[in-house]
Amino acid sequence: MRQSTLFTKTRKEAPSDEVSKNAQFLIRGGFISKEMAGVYSYLPLGLRVLNKIISIIREEMNAIGGQEVHFSSLQEKATWEPTNQWDDKEVDVWFKTKLKNETELGLAVTHEAPITKMLKDFIYSYRDLPQAIYQFQTKFRNELRAKSGIMRMREFLMKDLYSFNVDERAHLMFYEKAKEAYIKIFKRMGIGHLTYLTVASGGMFSKFSHEFQTITSTGEDTIYINEDTNIAINKEVFTDEVKNNLGLGDNFREAKAVEVGNIFTLGTRFSDALNLKYKTENGDSKSVFMGSYGIGPGRVMGTVVETLSDDKGIIWPESIAPFQVHLLAFGGDEAVLKEADKVYDSLQKNNIEVLFDDRSEISAGEKFSDADLLGIPYRAVVSTRSLKDGGIEIKKRTEEKGKVISLDELLKLLAPNH
Amino acid sequence: MRQSTLFTKTRKEAPSDEVSKNAQFLIRGGFISKEMAGVYSYLPLGLRVLNKIISIIREEMNAIGGQEVHFSSLQEKATWEPTNQWDDKEVDVWFKTKLKNETELGLAVTHEAPITKMLKDFIYSYRDLPQAIYQFQTKFRNELRAKSGIMRMREFLMKDLYSFNVDERAHLMFYEKAKEAYIKIFKRMGIGHLTYLTVASGGMFSKFSHEFQTITSTGEDTIYINEDTNIAINKEVFTDEVKNNLGLGDNFREAKAVEVGNIFTLGTRFSDALNLKYKTENGDSKSVFMGSYGIGPGRVMGTVVETLSDDKGIIWPESIAPFQVHLLAFGGDEAVLKEADKVYDSLQKNNIEVLFDDRSEISAGEKFSDADLLGIPYRAVVSTRSLKDGGIEIKKRTEEKGKVISLDELLKLLAPNH
Repeated sequence: MRQSTLFTKTRKEAPSDEVSKNAQFLIRGGFISKEMAGVYSYLPLGLRVLNKIISIIREEMNAIGGQEVHFSSLQEKATWEPTNQWDDKEVDVWFKTKLKNETELGLAVTHEAPITKMLKDFIYSYRDLPQAIYQFQTKFRNELRAKSGIMRMREFLMKDLYSFNVDERAHLMFYEKAKEAYIKIFKRMGIGHLTYLTVASGGMFSKFSHEFQTITSTGEDTIYINEDTNIAINKEVFTDEVKNNLGLGDNFREAKAVEVGNIFTLGTRFSDALNLKYKTENGDSKSVFMGSYGIGPGRVMGTVVETLSDDKGIIWPESIAPFQVHLLAFGGDEAVLKEADKVYDSLQKNNIEVLFDDRSEISAGEKFSDADLLGIPYRAVVSTRSLKDGGIEIKKRTEEKGKVISLDELLKLLAPNH
Repeated sequence: MRQSTLFTKTRKEAPSDEVSKNAQFLIRGGFISKEMAGVYSYLPLGLRVLNKIISIIREEMNAIGGQEVHFSSLQEKATWEPTNQWDDKEVDVWFKTKLKNETELGLAVTHEAPITKMLKDFIYSYRDLPQAIYQFQTKFRNELRAKSGIMRMREFLMKDLYSFNVDERAHLMFYEKAKEAYIKIFKRMGIGHLTYLTVASGGMFSKFSHEFQTITSTGEDTIYINEDTNIAINKEVFTDEVKNNLGLGDNFREAKAVEVGNIFTLGTRFSDALNLKYKTENGDSKSVFMGSYGIGPGRVMGTVVETLSDDKGIIWPESIAPFQVHLLAFGGDEAVLKEADKVYDSLQKNNIEVLFDDRSEISAGEKFSDADLLGIPYRAVVSTRSLKDGGIEIKKRTEEKGKVISLDELLKLLAPNH
């Protein structure tokens, strides 16, 4: 894409009401736009990153047998009454609204109940199980405060998967597969080395759940990482009893972290309440055993910015970068512009995603700052000097100095799946 | 995909409260699930169709220079007050909700205002124009009645594009490009021959707007199609004055139709009210000239079902079918199953999207009915008889009789982009 045609522009300063690093960099780079506290919109560069995150998650969910659906945001009172979750005292983040005839509706906080209800049309016998059903869909949560940019939003995209099995044993086998898939996802997104499988409270459903916590000084959670196993325990359940229970000894270090994913055993709470039963091989009727598995793609994006940026801007991992290479052309010199155009065309023909800073009235210094702020993994400069040195100056966002290589070498370096 | 692993099943009868053909077939086929009147969720087969519709629209919007964004559903009062559209008396389909501190919010009925507001950060000069910005995003409309399945929903996906130009002349050039793109989109989706460019009321913004109306007996609109030009006029503006104005003579036929898209000149209503101005070459300050362009992918899906089905089920056009071929295997015979498996693997290896009805306890008759109901363009049968006749029996959904061909011939017939 030619940067001259991109409608967004970078800015030098973030709005003064943004206190979080992720919102500051993402707004300065034109990745997102703020609607109100806790509500952001994705602009073209941000949407490209978001879609790459979604693609990685989708691939891994499909790989463990997930089937994708898309449920509605509007939900009925009757859907959440059986589990007592309609009451604002029980679930305190509802946004509610009304039909013309005064019927109360809720905006999806989560989707366990509607998906369980829908499955009653399709599950009759043990032969219809197991199932794993997932979606990427907006959740609405009426948070009292929202100051963490896209890390804690009132409206946000979530990948939520729900698993349905005949019993706890079958459930746990899937749960382990999901755990492995999650580890893979965070690794692929470039935050694997900072992300810890963390034992947390199981809530109302089971003894423990698992969170995936990424270490960052701005995290809202505190975790204790076991130095021997790299398994962490959330502060909320960090007791001697739990440590002994898990057999983890006493070698822990404390860290601030943000929850980028969680997996839960739901058991039969929803299937009992909503009557999702199946016939066993013996003809008995039994409640389906459920689990729930969430990741917020927007929060992952925010976490990457919080953890992988430097003071000049963002450093996107290649897997989720909006483009693979940022091509910069300097000077009004005809020869330079012609050569840069040629490089741009070659990159595109070779299916290498390139943002081409072809803007004419922008100084070299500004182009360099913009490239650092936008954080595309590779920067390729075509200038009078680079041409004199025999080609294109290539530099990784993480490197201090670049080197001059030929167009052929550039295409080889950036070839998809290199 | 193996049908035995798909969690949805077909049903013989639609729920008795569904009166529209699209909802009946789509629910019977397991494409969608009803949450409440006017609110449906997409199940795996339905989501595949929806995503293909989205892809076609996205390609054509990118082709006319559209840049994709994703705006929030939650909207502030302040965003819609300048155009007087916050008031329920002015816009009578709002769903409203509240923050904890009692601040009123609205659920997106449309997105002209927030996108105009956002652009104020990026548009300064005539050099920053033109722009065309689009998204696929949920709209919420508090309809009094909702009985038309996915044709008129209270929550639905919409592709909305907004154009921003220096003046009316530049606007009209883009408007024509968008019109051509829309004609192409409906053609690619298989309803081009039933869809008419229709002159309609311009509302508050301009004299006329254009709708794309698809003829169907269940349509809510009445249009008059000019037999000489194939341009139609919506009943609401079908007067002698308008006919003369458009120079269309008097050779019209009446038809019931459904609006599958619309394009509007907005003029400077939003840019005036929200103060989106730019500096001209002379340094004058001028309001940006806007247009708006909508298509509801779900409504298109419903319209295809309404118009292209027969009494046995749906007939998907190849471009938006959930799969290209429905492979059916009959009989418990080992040889048949082995051969069908081989055909399935070959199709997949050749990137041909195939739904493989490998279910063992289902009769041939039921498999045939399911295939007709699901409406996949090609049906390929592997049976004792087809093997005896030398291969696979292939039949188009629209054909009465099939013919037996070899696996090689099948792969050639169904090759992507054949």
